[in-house]
Amino acid sequence: MDPSDDQTACFEAGIKFGSLYHQFAGTPVSPASADSLARAMEEAIENQPHCESVTVEVLTDELSAELSDSAADYTELTGQFLDVEMVIDYEDTEVHTRMDMQDGYPLMRVEDIRAKD
Amino acid sequence: MDPSDDQTACFEAGIKFGSLYHQFAGTPVSPASADSLARAMEEAIENQPHCESVTVEVLTDELSAELSDSAADYTELTGQFLDVEMVIDYEDTEVHTRMDMQDGYPLMRVEDIRAKD
Amino acid sequence: MDPSDDQTACFEAGIKFGSLYHQFAGTPVSPASADSLARAMEEAIENQPHCESVTVEVLTDELSAELSDSAADYTELTGQFLDVEMVIDYEDTEVHTRMDMQDGYPLMRVEDIRAKD
Amino acid sequence: MDPSDDQTACFEAGIKFGSLYHQFAGTPVSPASADSLARAMEEAIENQPHCESVTVEVLTDELSAELSDSAADYTELTGQFLDVEMVIDYEDTEVHTRMDMQDGYPLMRVEDIRAKD
Repeated sequence: MDPSDDQTACFEAGIKFGSLYHQFAGTPVSPASADSLARAMEEAIENQPHCESVTVEVLTDELSAELSDSAADYTELTGQFLDVEMVIDYEDTEVHTRMDMQDGYPLMRVEDIRAKD
Repeated sequence: MDPSDDQTACFEAGIKFGSLYHQFAGTPVSPASADSLARAMEEAIENQPHCESVTVEVLTDELSAELSDSAADYTELTGQFLDVEMVIDYEDTEVHTRMDMQDGYPLMRVEDIRAKD
Repeated sequence: MDPSDDQTACFEAGIKFGSLYHQFAGTPVSPASADSLARAMEEAIENQPHCESVTVEVLTDELSAELSDSAADYTELTGQFLDVEMVIDYEDTEVHTRMDMQDGYPLMRVEDIRAKD
Repeated sequence: MDPSDDQTACFEAGIKFGSLYHQFAGTPVSPASADSLARAMEEAIENQPHCESVTVEVLTDELSAELSDSAADYTELTGQFLDVEMVIDYEDTEVHTRMDMQDGYPLMRVEDIRAKD
């Protein structure tokens, strides 16, 4: 069966999450460089088709906590330092998605699917 | 509205495609190393949740054609050298997806959504 | 033979170039998002040990030229769109390095090695 | 001052390490998929200029230990699961390099620089 518009919208939303995560995971990051990385992630992924908006927060409190136990002053970006929201817009469907930590794992999920007015 | 199982299945399928592409794009590749890269891509992404199977072909004819015009003997992996099929399995839904070149661009798409027996 | 300080400085310089390139190659980029990506690349790599400064220019004229021949309004970051300078500082040695296009290939090279005052 | 052959050899060695790490960090990996990933990493980086040999071990005991404390059956590749040796060959110089865990951090280092016979 061919996908419906809302199924394609969900597929497109997933592509953006996988892209964002695997493009940027591993980037050296510190509290001081968190903001420029978050902006670059947003603007990079917003280039992709049907991507209405991306909001990335790099969790500097979590970064600082991790680094306080460490001899290093930076670490590598992983999901534990990220809170991401995205809105995908495909034909008449809008998909709202989010990634944040749930039970110790970064969970990507669809929060809302709505028909546009 | 919360996603239905088939919508979640499509979201999960998209995640795998974005992950596969942005994890491995840019990898140095030659006709001789194409096969080990394809196997690693398949086995890496099959680790992800709900990922039933991944089949990656790195197009060695396309690689050889590109390199014949070049002073180099390898290039960086991009979508023009890839043909990928994936099956995602979420609850009672199976999603069949594919990426290959269409009109000069690597196109990721859902080919079939079916209820499992 | 163990490495001398200037040899270690050159090794460290190479690490930063390989890191920068393979972390960010493949990122979706357009003329409008070039600047945020360049800033993130600079600040990310400056986190690494012995990295005194990183200057990244994403070549928006080259990007615009590529996109004018294309149906897409973004592309993936590769070396043809980058001009990068880095200064590495290890013990008493400073290494100046650069990557830009030479004869159609992005060439990473050491431009100067100097003893610090 | 222009770099000498041994300094350039060390620079080239660093490039390969940064490339290997930042291309493959973040890849989904399990004990079962460790071997295909290690082979792909070796063959990919051996494509790069002046790269004589790459030997990658993905530490499956470390992976299993990490996963035994986890609800997941895979994790993301980071330096704690890697032991890498590389030989770089530039003009008359051979550089032997290694990355493994030292004091809780993945340390990349030059182990030996020798003139070739």
